[in-house]
Amino acid sequence: MNGGGEFDFIERVRRRELARSVQEKHTSLVTRHSSLLKGIGDDAAVLRPRAGFDLIITTDLLVEGVDFRLEKGWTSPRDLGHRALAVSLSDAAAMGARPRFCLLSVGVPRALWRGRFLDEFYEGVRALADVHGVRIIGGDTSRTPGGVVIDSIVLGEVRRGRALARGGARAGDQIFVTGALGGAAGGLKMLESGAVRTSRGRAGRGLLLRQRRPEPRVEWGALLSEKGLATSLIDLSDGLSSDLAHVCRESGVGARVEAASLPVDPLLARAGVGADEALRLALDGGEDFELLFTADPRRASRLPREVGGVPVTRVGEVTGERSKVRLVRDGRATLLKPGGFEHFRRDA
Amino acid sequence: MNGGGEFDFIERVRRRELARSVQEKHTSLVTRHSSLLKGIGDDAAVLRPRAGFDLIITTDLLVEGVDFRLEKGWTSPRDLGHRALAVSLSDAAAMGARPRFCLLSVGVPRALWRGRFLDEFYEGVRALADVHGVRIIGGDTSRTPGGVVIDSIVLGEVRRGRALARGGARAGDQIFVTGALGGAAGGLKMLESGAVRTSRGRAGRGLLLRQRRPEPRVEWGALLSEKGLATSLIDLSDGLSSDLAHVCRESGVGARVEAASLPVDPLLARAGVGADEALRLALDGGEDFELLFTADPRRASRLPREVGGVPVTRVGEVTGERSKVRLVRDGRATLLKPGGFEHFRRDA
Repeated sequence: MNGGGEFDFIERVRRRELARSVQEKHTSLVTRHSSLLKGIGDDAAVLRPRAGFDLIITTDLLVEGVDFRLEKGWTSPRDLGHRALAVSLSDAAAMGARPRFCLLSVGVPRALWRGRFLDEFYEGVRALADVHGVRIIGGDTSRTPGGVVIDSIVLGEVRRGRALARGGARAGDQIFVTGALGGAAGGLKMLESGAVRTSRGRAGRGLLLRQRRPEPRVEWGALLSEKGLATSLIDLSDGLSSDLAHVCRESGVGARVEAASLPVDPLLARAGVGADEALRLALDGGEDFELLFTADPRRASRLPREVGGVPVTRVGEVTGERSKVRLVRDGRATLLKPGGFEHFRRDA
Repeated sequence: MNGGGEFDFIERVRRRELARSVQEKHTSLVTRHSSLLKGIGDDAAVLRPRAGFDLIITTDLLVEGVDFRLEKGWTSPRDLGHRALAVSLSDAAAMGARPRFCLLSVGVPRALWRGRFLDEFYEGVRALADVHGVRIIGGDTSRTPGGVVIDSIVLGEVRRGRALARGGARAGDQIFVTGALGGAAGGLKMLESGAVRTSRGRAGRGLLLRQRRPEPRVEWGALLSEKGLATSLIDLSDGLSSDLAHVCRESGVGARVEAASLPVDPLLARAGVGADEALRLALDGGEDFELLFTADPRRASRLPREVGGVPVTRVGEVTGERSKVRLVRDGRATLLKPGGFEHFRRDA
């Protein structure tokens, strides 16, 4: 880690976080979770883990031109800050953990070094971190010869032995997803087609928001772990067809998904996207950062209908057909391949 | 985190680490430190922290063209893997912590995706990780439009309350450095001047090795923490003049360094570098990844002369002259500025 010169991003973050932590001390809250002994400004951050809890750690690399674009109309620095933290918070949620700390490594070309870019990026991170009570405890800064790169690292805590992995699904479990699917991919499609400049409807703006500012389902993840309601858990970063395949592979099971049950984002229809295309986006689109989990049918009745306004929908069931995911639509089952939607043809 | 497709670097690492952990189980070693519950292959890694220990975490971003070069003759993929892990292990050592786990985020252009690059990079990481008993527990992969970027994250453990920070030096403490200084900067100078192609002497090769394969002083750091021998500790990544200034700033003290006491790397003289230039490299060169620490004079006598073949040298003392670092040479004291060596002029 670094922390030194005037134009060192992490040093600037340090000063602001320091001002915040002084404020926090004045409110004299009792720290109920793992405590921070040393944040930004030394060779490493120092934590005292909370007794009775396990720690989770995840890292997500975002590269300009591949994972995001900064050209006008795509992503603002603030939205990029939100997104960089959101993807790692979502990974924490996908283990059933409560995120507590984050570190940010940021590579920036010289042209962006002194302007508003880094401040706005930080504000985007900070605002989302506040929502979830996450502290920024470290990071690193480098110049790059080209575009921006960000590595976002999140540490979370989960009650001892209660982390929810991908590998726990059993045949007969029911499959659930939180929220709505396909919206983020719909927003990406608008950006890619240039429709963002012509369409100014409320539905279109909603889809862009789903793409630019994903909301990690932290409260859902924590609830599933704390109440022991799920057998497996994953976040939908690649898309349902890919991520459900990960669960099946790790659990040694198969799955059957009802197309009619999928909570396709209603903004898609309102923005004029046809039903087939909306279904395809919901299955293969990715980046919704909703949670997918499996639950024993005897426990599923204890699931709340929603957590913090985010509903949950039963979309199918786990089968014993190892690594086979089938999609049922209008009574016909087709093999659903990761990211490759096969146009509802009858099973071979 | 990810872990999916055939060409996913982290997925490849997972398979190899899995093969290793099966071997480890067969040797049935009792785990004496924080245990890994879940490594690569889920949304996040899960750890069970060791009771009575604090955790440290550090991240280091390395960008091609800024922090390293891959052109022929500069760095091999294997050396790059070594270096990426070494810089973060050095940060752990600089807190007095024993490194235990690492995560690697790697961005690679398409051209390097399928060749030997990633395998050789991994072998470099793996070999150094083995030396220090570090497990690779996660990471992320992305394509980049241009060069290689690496973010190396290391978690370490240190006995509760025993982490050594930069801010503990007190006036009257003695200042020590491990190993030898200036060698890495000498190696870099050879690379930059193209001398690497002409000089083939043993000293030159030694300097290149110091640059390409820095050895983090993990055993020294752990000993200083475990025996309570240091009041402050930092690793020499930026160079003694900069890093000692960090210690002075964080501790609210000054320092006085004896030029004649500095353990200037003897390889520099053997490679034909003049005494003045060698001293400049030792003070400002950086990237030696030796440790600099301060110790109470009453405890300094308990320091071993060397640890694992790496000696320690007393180079000066801490003063009450807040944030002023003075260099004494031939009886004359000059103000030593971070990275800016003032040619031994008399004090103003």
